[in-house]
Amino acid sequence: MSVAQTNLGQALHTDLYQLTMAQAYWKTGLIAEDACFYMHFRENPFKGGYTIACGMAQVAELLENFAFTGGDLDWLGGLTTPTGAPLFEPRFLETLETLRLTLDIDAVPEGTVVFPYEPIIRVLGPIMQCQLIETALLNQVNYQMLIATKAARVCQAAGGPVAEFGLRRAQGPAGGLYASRAAVIGGCASTSDVAAGRLFDLPVSGTHAHSWVMAHPDELTAFRAFAEASPENCVLLVDTYDTMNGVRNAITVAHEMELCGHRLGGIRIDSGDLAWLSIQARDLLDAAGLEYVRIVASNDLDEQTIASLHEQGARIDSWGVGTKLVTAYDQPALPGVYKLSATRTPGARAWTPRIKVSEQPRKSTFPGILGLKRYFGPEGFMIGDMVYDQELSPVGDLIIDPHDDLRRKDLSEGRAVELLEPLARNGALVWPVVSALEAQANTHASLEGLHPSNRRFLNPHSYPVGLDRRLHEQREDLIMAARGLKSL
Amino acid sequence: MSVAQTNLGQALHTDLYQLTMAQAYWKTGLIAEDACFYMHFRENPFKGGYTIACGMAQVAELLENFAFTGGDLDWLGGLTTPTGAPLFEPRFLETLETLRLTLDIDAVPEGTVVFPYEPIIRVLGPIMQCQLIETALLNQVNYQMLIATKAARVCQAAGGPVAEFGLRRAQGPAGGLYASRAAVIGGCASTSDVAAGRLFDLPVSGTHAHSWVMAHPDELTAFRAFAEASPENCVLLVDTYDTMNGVRNAITVAHEMELCGHRLGGIRIDSGDLAWLSIQARDLLDAAGLEYVRIVASNDLDEQTIASLHEQGARIDSWGVGTKLVTAYDQPALPGVYKLSATRTPGARAWTPRIKVSEQPRKSTFPGILGLKRYFGPEGFMIGDMVYDQELSPVGDLIIDPHDDLRRKDLSEGRAVELLEPLARNGALVWPVVSALEAQANTHASLEGLHPSNRRFLNPHSYPVGLDRRLHEQREDLIMAARGLKSL
Repeated sequence: MSVAQTNLGQALHTDLYQLTMAQAYWKTGLIAEDACFYMHFRENPFKGGYTIACGMAQVAELLENFAFTGGDLDWLGGLTTPTGAPLFEPRFLETLETLRLTLDIDAVPEGTVVFPYEPIIRVLGPIMQCQLIETALLNQVNYQMLIATKAARVCQAAGGPVAEFGLRRAQGPAGGLYASRAAVIGGCASTSDVAAGRLFDLPVSGTHAHSWVMAHPDELTAFRAFAEASPENCVLLVDTYDTMNGVRNAITVAHEMELCGHRLGGIRIDSGDLAWLSIQARDLLDAAGLEYVRIVASNDLDEQTIASLHEQGARIDSWGVGTKLVTAYDQPALPGVYKLSATRTPGARAWTPRIKVSEQPRKSTFPGILGLKRYFGPEGFMIGDMVYDQELSPVGDLIIDPHDDLRRKDLSEGRAVELLEPLARNGALVWPVVSALEAQANTHASLEGLHPSNRRFLNPHSYPVGLDRRLHEQREDLIMAARGLKSL
Repeated sequence: MSVAQTNLGQALHTDLYQLTMAQAYWKTGLIAEDACFYMHFRENPFKGGYTIACGMAQVAELLENFAFTGGDLDWLGGLTTPTGAPLFEPRFLETLETLRLTLDIDAVPEGTVVFPYEPIIRVLGPIMQCQLIETALLNQVNYQMLIATKAARVCQAAGGPVAEFGLRRAQGPAGGLYASRAAVIGGCASTSDVAAGRLFDLPVSGTHAHSWVMAHPDELTAFRAFAEASPENCVLLVDTYDTMNGVRNAITVAHEMELCGHRLGGIRIDSGDLAWLSIQARDLLDAAGLEYVRIVASNDLDEQTIASLHEQGARIDSWGVGTKLVTAYDQPALPGVYKLSATRTPGARAWTPRIKVSEQPRKSTFPGILGLKRYFGPEGFMIGDMVYDQELSPVGDLIIDPHDDLRRKDLSEGRAVELLEPLARNGALVWPVVSALEAQANTHASLEGLHPSNRRFLNPHSYPVGLDRRLHEQREDLIMAARGLKSL
């Protein structure tokens, strides 16, 4: 069956246990219980000092398109338990058919710098609905935050423009699509992925491959043919046979192009010692009066390799980055989680904070209806973020480290900004439509607020994130209560 | 713009340079040139001894659905070069609008064990068409082969059933979809991904999450409620608060279920020391007369962790594997490539073999219209694979190592089988529709033909793959010629 041809509902993009739990909530009457969930992660990826928020626009899309189709429900109706009974009751499936989401969702805008343990997305509403969107939400946000962060690091190392071109090594076609979107939000100047370009209105770039050269009798003929066919978009790949010879052929063609009033855009080197080759190539180009011809480098690059090439004096103007960007090669998953933090019985006004206590203290969750505030100091830099429970007031300006309550910081000298913004109210979208390039501008602005010591690659200074004092106390009380119960 | 709502053509899933090259082929008259490309990879992933072929069904789909929509062409028509000129000529875009593929494609069946340097897919036809499908083909096949291979390794280590449930950490929604398909083809018993289950007819599995337990006043109440709501599909997650206490609560509920004629399916442990906890849990369950209750383990598992748990005497019956399977965490990309190996001018009968010579000898390609034969020895094991050029005959039974021509092996005692099968002829699909479970059976059968020394995780014996003598000579001649030309 072809994916493109199937009337698959967006709601089916979930784990089966969300549906078996949904049926159990429905059967036991808990379906009307209100819940609050929040998404967070526990460590910045790539041993880095920051993470870039991304993927929230797809959470909005998934809300907009949330539905089970008739075909989905027929298929679910045919599933059986290990003992051969129907897995789902027909009346439960009817509930799904007419289900409309009524959730309230808040999220950090795309391109914002965020940190471990912060509630990045908060979902509030009937518990069954909260669970039904969990998997798709995590799937999109985990992946896009990972790639936007990797892209921000690659661009930080590169200095010059970075083109993303990893589609052929991406994890599936949508791996490519969303990687391209997130890469641009993280800072990339363009993508090679045409579908992503069209869908997300991203700048696209590309010229020719080795096969173009191989399909011609020799490299010079191939370069001439390409320059003639594409004089305004001409970057010649010079390493099909011998790189320095390729540079000389490109110079010949560049001079021929000048005679026709055109300019060679650049040469690309895709193998070998990129530092040495780019220095030699720059010398040859400059000696030939072609200072305007840019040198593009590619071949398994990431932020570490790029930084090392700069250290070696490489003369590279722009960068093509593929596999290691779109797969986030050195850490291919951001293990973000979605945790229940409060429940409320129907009709009640007050929320009951909930906690999952873990034997690993870092894994114990934050209870309440969480909010997130960022404080900016007098010099304009961010000085600390506070997680608080909006049901508890008054909230102060002191933050307490959730893993070491003797580490505290007074943020009262700063100016506080709320980071969570409304994404949906009663199921209706209120999220502003922001283009990928606007989100990229937000990334740049947000990163500029982060002190350079938090941005460096090696052992970055850890940015202060803490709990409001009243949330801290509420959490301690609940942990004690849970442990007290346990020791009975 | 929502992905689901856009009339995006399948053909747009490509790198921009395929389209700029296509326009250049069109402009320079090379559009009618025939070409032969083949896909191969250079190393087994995960330092392993084998790779599982997968993703060919999606190559067939992409052929079936290949088209640019009007919206695609309008969008392409609006792209500009760096100098502001239109990137594509209107008459070229008209060519794309009416383009129908006429390719001949051959591929190794899904589930077949394959090795480095083997032509896994061969594409033959007009050069522009060969290039237009390259990116999407590599995207699907690289990723699915990677995941099918990882799944085969995980299942090899596990012994018992493995459920894939990585969707929330997969790289995008289709990362999840195709990971689930490839995981089942590689050997997984089921997936949690409902959409993948429906689309690819895969067994699905799942019961409940920690949030179910947290949404109830206490764990015992939560377990009872779930057992009542879902008595025929009941695996209780026992580690929300304290694992051994959770096991005791599950035992209470299992006994209550027995009174109603039901059986608890299993308990799941998702944190902590899985070896120690599973041994303790097994003891408690057995002492309570619940030998039939299975123990399911999960939490960041891969083949190495599973093998180590077995060594420690863990009592685990089945396994849930997520992030590290669907992202192929320790090597998140298979760098398969697609190389031009021959060209033919229109009307000519004979092919001209083509080579890309690299300064890294391993990267020099194989020239010709490549075929692939596998030899089985008298004991039924595979004894060696041969790459040959079907335009050269007679082909012998001797293979020559492409990286050390003094390593040779005579395979004449074996029975030879052709591995490439027709996927398309003149653009029409001839690929048999094979279900994921049938492809899984092929994986099992193919792996049984591989000697255990080639299958082990640590320093596996390398399986012999070589060139037919005449292909070897053709390649040597072309490398010499290329180097000879260079030194002029």
